[in-house]
Amino acid sequence: MAIVIIRKDDKINSWKEALNLYAPQIPVYGYLEKHPKEDIKMALVWKHPIGSLKDYPNLECIASSGAGVDFLFEDDQLPLHIPITRVVDEFLAKDMSEHVTALIFSQLKNLYHYKVDQFRKIWKPIPYKRIADVTIGIMGLGALGTVLAKDLVRLGFKVQGWSGSAKDIKGVTTFAGSSMQSAFLNSTQFLVCLLPLTNETRGILNAELFEQLPKGAHIINVARGGHLVDNDLLIMLDKGHLSGASLDVYHEEPLQLDHPFWEHPKIHMTPHYASVSDTASVVPQIVENYRRLASGEELLNLVSEDKKY
Amino acid sequence: MAIVIIRKDDKINSWKEALNLYAPQIPVYGYLEKHPKEDIKMALVWKHPIGSLKDYPNLECIASSGAGVDFLFEDDQLPLHIPITRVVDEFLAKDMSEHVTALIFSQLKNLYHYKVDQFRKIWKPIPYKRIADVTIGIMGLGALGTVLAKDLVRLGFKVQGWSGSAKDIKGVTTFAGSSMQSAFLNSTQFLVCLLPLTNETRGILNAELFEQLPKGAHIINVARGGHLVDNDLLIMLDKGHLSGASLDVYHEEPLQLDHPFWEHPKIHMTPHYASVSDTASVVPQIVENYRRLASGEELLNLVSEDKKY
Repeated sequence: MAIVIIRKDDKINSWKEALNLYAPQIPVYGYLEKHPKEDIKMALVWKHPIGSLKDYPNLECIASSGAGVDFLFEDDQLPLHIPITRVVDEFLAKDMSEHVTALIFSQLKNLYHYKVDQFRKIWKPIPYKRIADVTIGIMGLGALGTVLAKDLVRLGFKVQGWSGSAKDIKGVTTFAGSSMQSAFLNSTQFLVCLLPLTNETRGILNAELFEQLPKGAHIINVARGGHLVDNDLLIMLDKGHLSGASLDVYHEEPLQLDHPFWEHPKIHMTPHYASVSDTASVVPQIVENYRRLASGEELLNLVSEDKKY
Repeated sequence: MAIVIIRKDDKINSWKEALNLYAPQIPVYGYLEKHPKEDIKMALVWKHPIGSLKDYPNLECIASSGAGVDFLFEDDQLPLHIPITRVVDEFLAKDMSEHVTALIFSQLKNLYHYKVDQFRKIWKPIPYKRIADVTIGIMGLGALGTVLAKDLVRLGFKVQGWSGSAKDIKGVTTFAGSSMQSAFLNSTQFLVCLLPLTNETRGILNAELFEQLPKGAHIINVARGGHLVDNDLLIMLDKGHLSGASLDVYHEEPLQLDHPFWEHPKIHMTPHYASVSDTASVVPQIVENYRRLASGEELLNLVSEDKKY
């Protein structure tokens, strides 16, 4: 019984070391080294090569090493009968919440604007907004969205949330389903997307949705590039309906150098780094599920087969 | 009995209108218009022309329209026997707290760095810091510093404060006097200056103080330009002892165009706009003190004669 790590980036060794340190008794292999495929019970994966999961005859768990699992469903050779787990990490949610909080504050206080003015040696005060002036609307009230909503409420923001199914979060006005989307959007000044990427949510940040936001709204996409219709955002920014957008995720990552987002003065980019699964906080969850596999107990943080998150 | 407004900027009319709207019974004059000097009991001032306060024979109160009064003591013809009041404004303190919070978050999450990278089309994640990773040290625990300290504690930051006399704020480690300054500085990663500007605090942000901060500390000066020794800051940034500085205030405002701060990559400038006294929140305090003058009651928010704040 063993774990294989499958990912295309250069982090296989650091994950291997972290697992060895925490649970030296578990045999762990990188997928590129020689390893006994029939021993592999669990695959720890992040943006794996297509088809690389189909050759493990005894695989019992595909464990995403992040909160997202959308990359798995892009693999048309994914062995669909094997349970998938994802990471539900307190740090992941807190880090995301802090990142979004930073983005909102930088907008309220015009910090990016002042940084550009400094380059140009322009001294020009710009009226600031207060916490009390704005309503934050969060799309997606899962593990990440819920922590963010609670943190923003504690800061004194008016917070509302929209999700596929009804949720109840103290201090947060919640809306559910497509029938209530419009009411949610009409009163949202900062729209934060934290939805999972599914067939239903792909392209949800589009012109039709943006038009329902009040003039001057700001978009924060920290979920997946696939949620956003890039060209619709550009059109709505350029006609002045939206005041700006803070993006951490893109259709292609790193974003191709000829993409118009790079040079757009109303778009503020971060390189998909709002919240990073670090080995120290994720490894214990992986090891716990490995233990449960061995003893036949139910796995933690299973991904729902039909909802795909 | 009347009020005269004395300030060199273009805001005399908006203050006059705000006072007229709130208290139409009070005669209010701008100092440049013809007005009966012997009727003036209160002068509402902000960066007044030197000597402009000495010609009112019946003046009983000099009211600063902001939190600061340091500009008054730069007037060598100031009639020192007349009581001075300042504004203690909930909004002023909250706005300041929100601005400093925005600055801290933008540093934790490297937002300025990413904005510069975006200009250069560089995709490069930078490890972020968490709220839990840093200690904020506030110099000056007056009305503004206390609100900031409490807000940062509520956000989860480790907060410590230093002030001339001992203070007690829940959740905040406090240090008082010069003997405890070193212990305060040694453990501060973000140093926020919110001291009043007096003979004792002028130039307090100097090389000797910076050397007592841990390597990599960040300076936030939102008090007065006179607190900072500009050249000492530049030296400590360039030798890498300090990681950066966020400045809202300067020796000369607007900052002269040939000042090295404009082009320094580790200095982040805002144009003295962290917290602005707006007429709506300040006018009621002015009118209340005017009423107290008329009825011989004690004035609110009197400035201590010896401490000058």
